Amino acid sequence: MTAVTTDRAQRVGALFNPRSIALVGATDKSGWSATAFQNLREHGFPGPVHLVNPHASTVHGQPAHPSLSAIPEPVDLAYVMVPTAAVLDVLRDGSACGVRSFVVLTAGFGEAGEEGARREREIAEFAAAHGLTVLGPNGNGYINAATRAIPYGLPVPHPLRAGSVGIVLHSGALASAVLNFCQARDLGFGLLAVMGNETDVTVTDVLEHLIDDPDTRVIALFLEQIRRPEEFVRAARRAADAGKPIVALKVGTSEQAVRTAQAHTGALVGDDRVADAALRRCGVIRVHSLEDLIITAGMLAEVGPVRGDRIGVVTPSGGASEILADRAADEGLQLPEFSAATRTALAELLPDFAAANNPLDVTGYVVLDRSLLGRALEVVAEDPGIDAVLLLADLPRAEPPQPEVALEVFRANAERIRRAPVPVAVVSNVCTDVGEFARRLHREAGFPHVAGGMEHGMSALGALVRWSAAVREPPKVPAPRSPVAVPAGASGTWSEYRAAGLLAEHGIPVVPARRAADEDTAVSAAEAIGYPVVLKAVADGLGHKSDIGGVRLDLADAEAVRTAYREVAAVLHEQRRTGEGVLLQPQRTGGVELLVGVLRDPVWGPVLAVGLGGIWVEVLADTELCLLPAGRAEVRAAFDRLRGAGLLHGARGQRPADLDALVDVVLQIGDLADGLGPDLESLEVNPLLVDGSRVEALDALITWRGR
Amino acid sequence: MTAVTTDRAQRVGALFNPRSIALVGATDKSGWSATAFQNLREHGFPGPVHLVNPHASTVHGQPAHPSLSAIPEPVDLAYVMVPTAAVLDVLRDGSACGVRSFVVLTAGFGEAGEEGARREREIAEFAAAHGLTVLGPNGNGYINAATRAIPYGLPVPHPLRAGSVGIVLHSGALASAVLNFCQARDLGFGLLAVMGNETDVTVTDVLEHLIDDPDTRVIALFLEQIRRPEEFVRAARRAADAGKPIVALKVGTSEQAVRTAQAHTGALVGDDRVADAALRRCGVIRVHSLEDLIITAGMLAEVGPVRGDRIGVVTPSGGASEILADRAADEGLQLPEFSAATRTALAELLPDFAAANNPLDVTGYVVLDRSLLGRALEVVAEDPGIDAVLLLADLPRAEPPQPEVALEVFRANAERIRRAPVPVAVVSNVCTDVGEFARRLHREAGFPHVAGGMEHGMSALGALVRWSAAVREPPKVPAPRSPVAVPAGASGTWSEYRAAGLLAEHGIPVVPARRAADEDTAVSAAEAIGYPVVLKAVADGLGHKSDIGGVRLDLADAEAVRTAYREVAAVLHEQRRTGEGVLLQPQRTGGVELLVGVLRDPVWGPVLAVGLGGIWVEVLADTELCLLPAGRAEVRAAFDRLRGAGLLHGARGQRPADLDALVDVVLQIGDLADGLGPDLESLEVNPLLVDGSRVEALDALITWRGR
Repeated sequence: MTAVTTDRAQRVGALFNPRSIALVGATDKSGWSATAFQNLREHGFPGPVHLVNPHASTVHGQPAHPSLSAIPEPVDLAYVMVPTAAVLDVLRDGSACGVRSFVVLTAGFGEAGEEGARREREIAEFAAAHGLTVLGPNGNGYINAATRAIPYGLPVPHPLRAGSVGIVLHSGALASAVLNFCQARDLGFGLLAVMGNETDVTVTDVLEHLIDDPDTRVIALFLEQIRRPEEFVRAARRAADAGKPIVALKVGTSEQAVRTAQAHTGALVGDDRVADAALRRCGVIRVHSLEDLIITAGMLAEVGPVRGDRIGVVTPSGGASEILADRAADEGLQLPEFSAATRTALAELLPDFAAANNPLDVTGYVVLDRSLLGRALEVVAEDPGIDAVLLLADLPRAEPPQPEVALEVFRANAERIRRAPVPVAVVSNVCTDVGEFARRLHREAGFPHVAGGMEHGMSALGALVRWSAAVREPPKVPAPRSPVAVPAGASGTWSEYRAAGLLAEHGIPVVPARRAADEDTAVSAAEAIGYPVVLKAVADGLGHKSDIGGVRLDLADAEAVRTAYREVAAVLHEQRRTGEGVLLQPQRTGGVELLVGVLRDPVWGPVLAVGLGGIWVEVLADTELCLLPAGRAEVRAAFDRLRGAGLLHGARGQRPADLDALVDVVLQIGDLADGLGPDLESLEVNPLLVDGSRVEALDALITWRGR
Repeated sequence: MTAVTTDRAQRVGALFNPRSIALVGATDKSGWSATAFQNLREHGFPGPVHLVNPHASTVHGQPAHPSLSAIPEPVDLAYVMVPTAAVLDVLRDGSACGVRSFVVLTAGFGEAGEEGARREREIAEFAAAHGLTVLGPNGNGYINAATRAIPYGLPVPHPLRAGSVGIVLHSGALASAVLNFCQARDLGFGLLAVMGNETDVTVTDVLEHLIDDPDTRVIALFLEQIRRPEEFVRAARRAADAGKPIVALKVGTSEQAVRTAQAHTGALVGDDRVADAALRRCGVIRVHSLEDLIITAGMLAEVGPVRGDRIGVVTPSGGASEILADRAADEGLQLPEFSAATRTALAELLPDFAAANNPLDVTGYVVLDRSLLGRALEVVAEDPGIDAVLLLADLPRAEPPQPEVALEVFRANAERIRRAPVPVAVVSNVCTDVGEFARRLHREAGFPHVAGGMEHGMSALGALVRWSAAVREPPKVPAPRSPVAVPAGASGTWSEYRAAGLLAEHGIPVVPARRAADEDTAVSAAEAIGYPVVLKAVADGLGHKSDIGGVRLDLADAEAVRTAYREVAAVLHEQRRTGEGVLLQPQRTGGVELLVGVLRDPVWGPVLAVGLGGIWVEVLADTELCLLPAGRAEVRAAFDRLRGAGLLHGARGQRPADLDALVDVVLQIGDLADGLGPDLESLEVNPLLVDGSRVEALDALITWRGR
């Protein structure tokens, strides 16, 4: 956490902390301009705000300057709203007079075709050459709620509450939705930045800035894509090390992966599943809605790491208890029985008809005794078998008849939550806005942030528990593999024979095989192997041999081999692939057939897929991914996540797989594929047979990138 | 829909439409009493409200009467808040003076042990004998927002908007959460009823009432259990026939099914999965949060049935488009490309840099041209390839600077939505409260209800599409099966031999088998069958034979049979089950092993489970359920829902299963199990082998209920 006061970090820090701002292209005719001006004024930016317009002497009721250089005082940041073609001139003018930071709202750059891309390159080059910092173009700007620096062209709702969440978004339109939701939930943030085209300042730059910002506790991201994955991963790991959770809504789960269909791995490994694996590895909490993004960030900003997944639930309602129990099960959280001491203490507190269960329903008696919920919380939080408490408590929607009484009750409960020996997450029944009086409970009674609704609240708690576990035991990511020499003839799709040869060369156990180019050789090969045997077509460029009838199993004698040979030769002839012959292998029985595949993702690099193999690949598509290079524990965890994981543990009397031996071979396959580098498109072993401690590739397929 | 003006329906109608109300047990000392009185006064109940208190002449500033019979005017409904022991007297007194409807808030009855249960029976008997209608006890009462009859003891938020949703809840505490959420979303309801113990008036009674109520369009339920399943199913079907969707949040998904572990089916069929199957069959939309309950009901109250699952999405934001595309994929909805005509028309409307894709992002240009979104909606709604439109539109959170302009924009869009040739569902970016100005847009501009947030909104749209499909093609439920004679000796767990015999007797194809009590007989049986054979232990009370080594597969000759016999005999000896011998069957190869099981759920009766069989049962637990008797289409759909369904369709060169033949056999198994009645605990065929059109039970297990 020290090496970061780099020049870049300083430039980004300056971008987000200007002492003076100029709105360039300010005009009474533009809603953007009026809003940007209003935001700075109404939310209390303390520094001077200059307006630049070459054609008007007064804008928004204030004198305007014809250019940045005409402003008689130093300007730290220019918010640029001029037409696309004029942006570069503004940078030139500003650079000349000492403006170092620019936020470019103007669109029409990289997102708008060739000409726009050219203009964007010009800006990037000029900025780099002159040491300028540029946020955007094609982004709304940012809101620094802490310093009130708000170069931002869309309305910012009142009141703007500063807090400990940092927010970074690709989409400007969604920023308004996020602002509204934060405001509705009374959740404060420090910085909200809209990235635009990331010409200069990137998501990672802002991430790094927020990691170093002592006032930021949690970072919330809305990502349309991850443009610089290596930087992103590095920043995410640094955030994890610093104990700052990153919550991300990354869109694109519905995108179809467009990849070669030759190997199964291509179809199984959608882009989004790779992103999922990548985000999991670097400890990023992935959510799937804006509500979950903000509610999860809000909870994590308030509630520190938890030591385990055993949750005590305290509620004033039986119905809510049942909903929470269901949701806890969805999230994989435990609701253990309370200890005998806890049950005794609760029995003393609660009315006779209440039961001291977890989840706890203190009953409608709270209407008569308003301290009941808080006192029950106190008892449950002391239970030694509980890692965290979920307290169900609604904030009043309107000011109650006796506001002072309510303030006192919430003040007492706030104190109980602070004193509790385990973290307490407060969740409301449903997701409604935090009203005016409830805001007083936050400010005056110190009552903590309340997660909006049981559904989102329990999702947030699940994320908190999983994040805490990942922080306790971060994945050990091994060093990159040493490169492997790419063999001669590495193009197109390699036949099983060549692919298996390459695997064997690198020490990966492969089923013995003999090649035969005619019927008689096939029979003598079979006899040398010993019956029963398998006979397979051999041909480069041939993908799924079974689909075209190119595989014959369980051949028990010479006659069967001859028939099989003739049939497969006919298939090859039909496919115009005569002359490449067949392969003979011993017939294996028993064991579990797995798939192990590696392909190179354009964003994240080599990705390992493990799953059930054989016919189960298509039927169940039961695969799990990790990025390469992967550690043993990660590969092991990927196997454990399979729906069919039970097969490996010895289902119904079968021999359990030797998982250490299996992981060894999978790591060898991963190392080979990773080491072959970008020439390799995909490498797939299917099936990889595991039978106790015997692990053996029965078939393999390698596809090289065309040169 | 005609036969319902029964006496019961009339009584329930009278309960919910009183012209006068008495609060019995009214006292200044009770918050419940004060709130109930306030609710009737402040929300404008037009009839007289009487207060009954034997010890006070004035309560809540109004003269009180010592008893119901002392009230000089007729009383239609009594809201009873007296101590538990005094409730029966109130019923007696009221009955004597002509009060016919009672809402009993008082607790301490069936939910509170033996004595309470006795008191509850007394009340039920007295009510039945005297023709009284009782809601509760142990329930808050109800809110009739249409007539303002509100015998209800918890605060009802202002303003109370009447509308077309009917709400029925088991939990009183959650009713407050539901009220708050409806109020926050500006969603009107007609009746909200809290059931309490359902001593007299049941969930089904209220359902029937709402189905007949012309002002109710959608019914929302929160259920802790379903006490009278047959009545419930009947009512739900009537609702479907009447085109009134029922949306239900039924808790209990996390409950562990406590059932005999002898057959797999018991472990696979959790209570909650049975409830799921039951609700699906009767067309009830199941949701899993209060937010989804209310948001889904709100959308269905506004948007009629849709003809298909092809959705056009119109938004002002690229980021939102991507989130919606992801969520649509989760819900199984299609977002087809727009037709050429639509694309041309959109190109004329949109700025140059916008693309006419689905989902459509009309771009931030809406800030400049506020009619853009509405005009794009108009175009998309005309696309012949679209069944419904999702319009992303936020209601303003506060009054904008030019309210009349906003009113005009929303009025024009409301008109476009009304005129659209397909249903239009309006969804906001995030789930925030509907503010004061937005309420004016509903009232004055006629803008329709807006679903709260993209996540919940798309869930609601998915539910709408699925419900519409179910209403178009309601499941054909066959008549109950004729009973089957329970065979002699029906107790405990039956050996495969006896179970298979019963199946065969009823025409279910079973693999041929011969029994042998010694080694030599086993060999001659094997020879009569033809090698290879399977040898299995035979013993009543023996569940999973393979787990204890009681099954030997693929025996190729007499020697193998002898060895197997000795080993299995040793196993049986160990298990102290000597003397029952072994079973020999031909060894089958190929095909797909399925599980077909039936068990009797205590609530829903006989339930059929189908799934992948053999070792896959435990490894994947891939099963789907339907209630019995089931129609062909339902059983077929259950197979289609299996994750491993691809196996049946001929994965990778295997022969596809003859699904008609398969369903025939499954229906036969279902009929037999159903026909055997409550003496049968479970019947399980595992594996049922399907190989093309050959369907054959390879093993069977029957467990009878102990007598």
